[in-house]
Amino acid sequence: MRLNPHFSKFQEDYVYVTIQEKVEAFKQTNPQANILDLGIGDVSRPLAPGIVTAIQQAADDQLKMETFHGYGPKGGYSFLIEKILTNDYLDKGIHLNEKEIFISDGSKSDGAHIQDLFDDNVKIAVVDPFYPVYIDSNVMAGRAGEYDCKTRRWSQLIYLDANESNDFISDIPNEVVDVIYLNYPNNPTGKAINKDDLQRFVNYANENNALIVFDAAYEAFIQTDAMLHSIYECDGAKKCAIELKSFSKSAGFTGLRLGYMVIPEELAYDGQSLNQLWARREATKFNGASYIIQKAGAAVYEAATQKNLRENIQHYLTNAKRVKGALEGLGMQVYGGEDAPYLWLKSPKEQSSWEFFDDLFNKYQIISTPGSAYGANGEQFVRLSMFASDTVITELLQRLTK
Amino acid sequence: MRLNPHFSKFQEDYVYVTIQEKVEAFKQTNPQANILDLGIGDVSRPLAPGIVTAIQQAADDQLKMETFHGYGPKGGYSFLIEKILTNDYLDKGIHLNEKEIFISDGSKSDGAHIQDLFDDNVKIAVVDPFYPVYIDSNVMAGRAGEYDCKTRRWSQLIYLDANESNDFISDIPNEVVDVIYLNYPNNPTGKAINKDDLQRFVNYANENNALIVFDAAYEAFIQTDAMLHSIYECDGAKKCAIELKSFSKSAGFTGLRLGYMVIPEELAYDGQSLNQLWARREATKFNGASYIIQKAGAAVYEAATQKNLRENIQHYLTNAKRVKGALEGLGMQVYGGEDAPYLWLKSPKEQSSWEFFDDLFNKYQIISTPGSAYGANGEQFVRLSMFASDTVITELLQRLTK
Repeated sequence: MRLNPHFSKFQEDYVYVTIQEKVEAFKQTNPQANILDLGIGDVSRPLAPGIVTAIQQAADDQLKMETFHGYGPKGGYSFLIEKILTNDYLDKGIHLNEKEIFISDGSKSDGAHIQDLFDDNVKIAVVDPFYPVYIDSNVMAGRAGEYDCKTRRWSQLIYLDANESNDFISDIPNEVVDVIYLNYPNNPTGKAINKDDLQRFVNYANENNALIVFDAAYEAFIQTDAMLHSIYECDGAKKCAIELKSFSKSAGFTGLRLGYMVIPEELAYDGQSLNQLWARREATKFNGASYIIQKAGAAVYEAATQKNLRENIQHYLTNAKRVKGALEGLGMQVYGGEDAPYLWLKSPKEQSSWEFFDDLFNKYQIISTPGSAYGANGEQFVRLSMFASDTVITELLQRLTK
Repeated sequence: MRLNPHFSKFQEDYVYVTIQEKVEAFKQTNPQANILDLGIGDVSRPLAPGIVTAIQQAADDQLKMETFHGYGPKGGYSFLIEKILTNDYLDKGIHLNEKEIFISDGSKSDGAHIQDLFDDNVKIAVVDPFYPVYIDSNVMAGRAGEYDCKTRRWSQLIYLDANESNDFISDIPNEVVDVIYLNYPNNPTGKAINKDDLQRFVNYANENNALIVFDAAYEAFIQTDAMLHSIYECDGAKKCAIELKSFSKSAGFTGLRLGYMVIPEELAYDGQSLNQLWARREATKFNGASYIIQKAGAAVYEAATQKNLRENIQHYLTNAKRVKGALEGLGMQVYGGEDAPYLWLKSPKEQSSWEFFDDLFNKYQIISTPGSAYGANGEQFVRLSMFASDTVITELLQRLTK
């Protein structure tokens, strides 16, 4: 028996282990310390009442034979898909049909599994900094080549630089690639994208027969009018792009697990329909999201719940605004936080991201995520999650401003 | 952009489409017909009350910040894993630790995803008839070779025949293979396996450095004392086997989505720990099963719920016994149904499985699943699911015995 050889190419992922060790060591000498965790991007505000009621009613359905739901329909329940089509797309003038939506257990699975449809030898481009799933899932499939510890990049991947010089919106590739992973609003930089910038990628993809995997998990956080909520707001995107959406951050579903992928029926390569391939992939490898959780997803679109969720999002964005203000008051350069719940904070001293992490931790007892976890362009940065609880944010503001 | 070329090797999966067409055609000329669906293996009895209560309480937890649960721990919540270790293994004298259990959204995903850990060129053996996921997931990864329409087998797979001549328990491979998928109690034959028979596979795997993927999704249905509930009842199995378990059929979770995989820490190939590889795979591609659904899983082990679930299982097995008796009364040869909820019914006229399907449908208006859907050894057979509702079973018995 031989195991997949590509797993051994990973550098051991010590980021969270190292952070944990640093925190534990600090606690040894400072047992009373109140450490503020702004590292992991998990929501802190509870579910909206309308969502909990929907779950409890759906659970009641499962008590009686007449209303019991076993295996659900392939692709998801119509009661959820119809709400998505109307509320997430039709209101933006985007016409999709029911077969173009695939309900899933979240965007992490979708973002990782989509590469099942790619040929082994496709050329893949990622924006650096990146959400690690795009790269790691392709490393496991053998598409990334070898890792270079010095450049901290994989030999066969194309990296599109997103940094201060281009306001964190990268250029299109200057060579021919097959797949481009894009993520706006972006994790970790917190930047959204406007139509001109995204249209350039769509045009590139259509001209070069490429596929765009557009991860819009943070779409609900967009406040700036010019920023795009969906890649299908660009002309011709249905011919070259799939879109990933999640209920995790927009509705607090990190613990419920629900998301969806849009695959337009007209999307095809060499006459093969991507939609049909994914339908076959899902029929073979997935038995759907829970009926109860899909009912929770449908409740997200009710008016009272929408109001609750908008309040939650405003709350997180207010956190971002206040923390950003306090950090800027200390003379720091802070990006993001306007259309996404993340601050992308630059070291004032050109430190490595780990040195910057240490500085912030030692001075303020803040846990951040070192930017190097998101790629070479993350050096000199840390990411701060604004999903933290009110208690944490209030205490943080006191420490930063005293 | 080039898509995965292996998807085009699939024969179009017309089984359920064809069945649907036959049913629709029949309804055109017989609009009043009461058609009895014994095809799909989905449960019909509702959830036990203790499970629904657990879901509703867990949903209440999600209403308050202090008890809200976002992302769960990697591998699953301890409150569930501890119950699994105690109730599913320790009671059989099998000692496992918490790190050896990986909670998932079901055995279909696990059975399909485990091949992520295999080298591209491993030699794979399946028992024919088979649960299609084992083969299809490897076809997509390019390990199956080419499909031969005449033999109805893939060129690079090794098929282990399970038929009447060996009482549906195949021999071990007569050549060296790397991976063997085993499924007992078996879908579709309904047969369980005893220690002597399974130990031969374990010994083979240990002697040949092979891996056994043991799918025990129907374990809760075993009634015969000599039949094994877990592969770890065999000597040396922790060195060569992983085990898949599901709450779908044992607790009616087909619509909730929960299962788990056991990967012993001592399982290693070329010094690489399979457990560590899977942990890395899951951290990259999966964000866990829903907190609420894991709470439902924990409730399965409560005494009152266990009593409800045993009653459900007895109910399905009583269906099986009565239907088997009625079919035997018609002179038919019927296998399975004692330790699993499926009957494996042989055509009395050496028909193809589709001809047999047609006969049963035209005579009794029963929908079965043609055995050919499960491999070449499924010819001359159909599978009947005994998960059908009481109404369906009662009507079926009337038709068979009148």
